[in-house]
Amino acid sequence: MGKYVFGVDVGGTTVKLGLFDAEGNVKDKWEIPTRTEEKGSHIMADIAGSIMVKMKQEGLEKEDIIGVGMGVPGPVKADGTVLKAANLGWGVFNPNEELSELLGVPVKTGNDANVAALGEMWKGGGQGYRDMVAVTLGTGVGGGVILGGHMVCGSNGAGGEIGHIHLEDNEEDQCGCKNRGCLEQYASATGIVRLANKKLAVTSRDSILRQGEVSAKSIWDAVKAEDELAMEVAEMYGEYLGKGLAAVADVVNPEVFVIGGGVSKAGRVVIDYMEPYFKKYVFHGGANAKFALAKLGNDAGIFGAVKLILDEVM
Amino acid sequence: MGKYVFGVDVGGTTVKLGLFDAEGNVKDKWEIPTRTEEKGSHIMADIAGSIMVKMKQEGLEKEDIIGVGMGVPGPVKADGTVLKAANLGWGVFNPNEELSELLGVPVKTGNDANVAALGEMWKGGGQGYRDMVAVTLGTGVGGGVILGGHMVCGSNGAGGEIGHIHLEDNEEDQCGCKNRGCLEQYASATGIVRLANKKLAVTSRDSILRQGEVSAKSIWDAVKAEDELAMEVAEMYGEYLGKGLAAVADVVNPEVFVIGGGVSKAGRVVIDYMEPYFKKYVFHGGANAKFALAKLGNDAGIFGAVKLILDEVM
Repeated sequence: MGKYVFGVDVGGTTVKLGLFDAEGNVKDKWEIPTRTEEKGSHIMADIAGSIMVKMKQEGLEKEDIIGVGMGVPGPVKADGTVLKAANLGWGVFNPNEELSELLGVPVKTGNDANVAALGEMWKGGGQGYRDMVAVTLGTGVGGGVILGGHMVCGSNGAGGEIGHIHLEDNEEDQCGCKNRGCLEQYASATGIVRLANKKLAVTSRDSILRQGEVSAKSIWDAVKAEDELAMEVAEMYGEYLGKGLAAVADVVNPEVFVIGGGVSKAGRVVIDYMEPYFKKYVFHGGANAKFALAKLGNDAGIFGAVKLILDEVM
Repeated sequence: MGKYVFGVDVGGTTVKLGLFDAEGNVKDKWEIPTRTEEKGSHIMADIAGSIMVKMKQEGLEKEDIIGVGMGVPGPVKADGTVLKAANLGWGVFNPNEELSELLGVPVKTGNDANVAALGEMWKGGGQGYRDMVAVTLGTGVGGGVILGGHMVCGSNGAGGEIGHIHLEDNEEDQCGCKNRGCLEQYASATGIVRLANKKLAVTSRDSILRQGEVSAKSIWDAVKAEDELAMEVAEMYGEYLGKGLAAVADVVNPEVFVIGGGVSKAGRVVIDYMEPYFKKYVFHGGANAKFALAKLGNDAGIFGAVKLILDEVM
């Protein structure tokens, strides 16, 4: 049995790679560009090439490598079949087979949000838990459900798509998914800006938020400065997020929610505004869920990828 | 290894028992009363006694018995610990240990709704599926989530409590759980009657429903007779149920929903009114979920209990 593992996180513009030992210690981290031309057909070869170069540099043979774990941006079934990855140009495709053939080592692929959740459970904000939901409050709202220590892929690779839980009947704007009233339309970075701008438009009240461009960061900074209007926006934000996570808890009853993504950089204050609403709307049996901040940032994907292949082969 | 299995479904008034072979064929079925006096402390002994009598009648020795599976009405953790079963008078308690000691065979306990879901997957409407959500539309709305063929208990035994997903901010009445606006307040048998009575109260329009007492059955009968008011009630019912199940699919993305309970006796019409709303509100990745009617009725619990212990020991 080998001693080293590669973790790969395929994004729309760059591929992050990491070389780890089997205990999850990072030996090296680097990035290569994602070549999306020609329907993304070069991506696997580029990754294989980059891994082979690294192996040569480090004096590693195939026998030293336990395997390669990988996260990709799209729905992935439990057997590693990617159903579609629009950002990469991929249709239905099993990257496990292609990359494994190129490298001669086992490969295991999962959805990037689910894989990142696994990373947070293993080495981040969810350490010590086995039933966990990771929530990424970024440009969109992503989710990764982990039960009994394993990712919930869903029958069609759409497990953990919690950003698209319907919350609001009276929504005129369309979500990226074409529905109206999804959690993501309120709880993402763009969502909170939308809530703030709507509030600013219907009142002439003074607010720090009128002094510059409104962003997720400027809103939470204003909340911390006790700006009244910003605090009202945070309250609305907290109610939408709390209501959405309550629905998640009613289905899978996790021990902990791990909150990450750009919006969560504001820190614990995001949880403080959300948690009372979570407790208001959740079934009492799930009300004792804990909330923690994610710890791994952009590295959650490569950590989770390593855990994914370790769980598979060891 | 033995050849026979007992399935036990503990209810608030009766305990159902079944003797099965390991392939799930029923050899015998019977019931005993549930003695809830003295905090339900006699229930395990009554069950053990009834099983021992049956073994004697059938000439079975301890060595012939693979084990006993059991469903109980309350939150049950993955290790079989019951956190509370108000209808039985139980507090925190592990029935596996007590019953196993009395009988000298392995015992495995789960929440009754989750266990019934397992039964429907094994021998009922969910046969052939591994990722399934069972929905029981009865006095309340229960749920059982099965992923990869196994029950999702939740960290606190509250997995699958889908009847308490919050759907309606403008609800004045309280749910049994003390919240307001739960799926159960609309989609249960009492929920649909409530919807119909509210509708009848605000209009003087004619309807078959004015001719007698309104019940879930009379409403669906009126729908089948194309009573306009009843069809509008069914439409509202379908929207609430579809919206709730869409949230479930956004979290766990099942292959199939299996619909059971009293309301589902009306048949496929319930699914027909719900499915368009499910498709409207669900994330597109989960939109191809199938809907099937439950097949085992009140026997789902004993079938699932048998499957639970077979999965554990075989």
